Amino acid sequence: MGEENLNFRAKDLVTLEQNFRRNFINSLSGYKSVNLVGTIDKNNKTNLAIFNTIIHIGSSPALMGLLIRPPVVPRHTLNNILEMGCFTINHINPTIYHKAHQTAARYKKEDKSEFDIVGLTPHYSDALKAPYVGESTVKIGLELRETHEVKTNGTIFVVGEVIEVTLPKSAVLSDGLIDLGITATVTSSGLDTYYTTRKIARFSYANPNQDLNIIG
Amino acid sequence: MGEENLNFRAKDLVTLEQNFRRNFINSLSGYKSVNLVGTIDKNNKTNLAIFNTIIHIGSSPALMGLLIRPPVVPRHTLNNILEMGCFTINHINPTIYHKAHQTAARYKKEDKSEFDIVGLTPHYSDALKAPYVGESTVKIGLELRETHEVKTNGTIFVVGEVIEVTLPKSAVLSDGLIDLGITATVTSSGLDTYYTTRKIARFSYANPNQDLNIIG
Repeated sequence: MGEENLNFRAKDLVTLEQNFRRNFINSLSGYKSVNLVGTIDKNNKTNLAIFNTIIHIGSSPALMGLLIRPPVVPRHTLNNILEMGCFTINHINPTIYHKAHQTAARYKKEDKSEFDIVGLTPHYSDALKAPYVGESTVKIGLELRETHEVKTNGTIFVVGEVIEVTLPKSAVLSDGLIDLGITATVTSSGLDTYYTTRKIARFSYANPNQDLNIIG
Repeated sequence: MGEENLNFRAKDLVTLEQNFRRNFINSLSGYKSVNLVGTIDKNNKTNLAIFNTIIHIGSSPALMGLLIRPPVVPRHTLNNILEMGCFTINHINPTIYHKAHQTAARYKKEDKSEFDIVGLTPHYSDALKAPYVGESTVKIGLELRETHEVKTNGTIFVVGEVIEVTLPKSAVLSDGLIDLGITATVTSSGLDTYYTTRKIARFSYANPNQDLNIIG
């Protein structure tokens, strides 16, 4: 390439200025899923928070993982998940992404719910207590299955099982893939940057000794 | 919206045809980071595999998580990480994404390394034993810190600490954010679909009672 590279070692990373390091390390894994997580406590106070730390864990049963920062300050999302045993994951689209970003502000327990503050609509289902985001095109309801503490920094890895999904019929392709263009789902990098996408290709299943085909 | 929605409950999800369910659940969390994970065993046999289950865990220390499927069949990546205590994460760009996808094929232990099979170049550093992908613009070296078994389906959540990062100088903005357009990093959905992106906005840090600004 002939282009000039930077090389950081472990000893360099610890000396980076705090804000620089946070931006740098948060963008290091590439683009991230970004979703709104809806919860409720036993007094029916709702909470809504943006998360970019959600991964797929399995399809059968349908499991997703959510990493939550250390509970050294009040973490309403974590508390509510532990208290009520459920949460929702809601896709973010360009009509609500500024409201979604604002949910990252550190509101206090005595403040109103983030739903009211940022102006999003809680929707409820008979499948679980936690609120969905009415304005989201893809709404996922989950029940808590496991938590794991990451010992190295005290974060909590929450494992949930999908018990309800609501989304536009037109977004589900004949083989099950969700067309994230039709749902207008956005992606993110770092802590604050949002993107739409353009498809390059969908490939056939990879087999040894067989060329890939573009199937979509 | 007036648009027709689909609603799946837990009982519906279990009855979905297997391939449909795999595509559907794998695309449910939205866009995903997609990276090549490089490892080596104690006999210096390298392995390269594509993963869309990587998340940010923390900035100080710099930690990343990688979810690996159940070790019911040989999982060379997991075995090598446990054996050597290190691995690399390498960004995928449009010049190598078809090669990256091909690494998902189920090669056998006696086959050549995926580096040779798909035609990517192992690069080595004195910081760790695991190989980097020479063609990747962002190369991350990690040491194993923890593993956690997700009891519900037997997958393994691997926690690694970043000990080396190599990337183009021009991709690192003044406040640390990596410009994923300059690194030409791609994103993915489901198991097989790849995308480039277009930035919508970068927002200022969210504070209570303060309007967001677009800062980039």
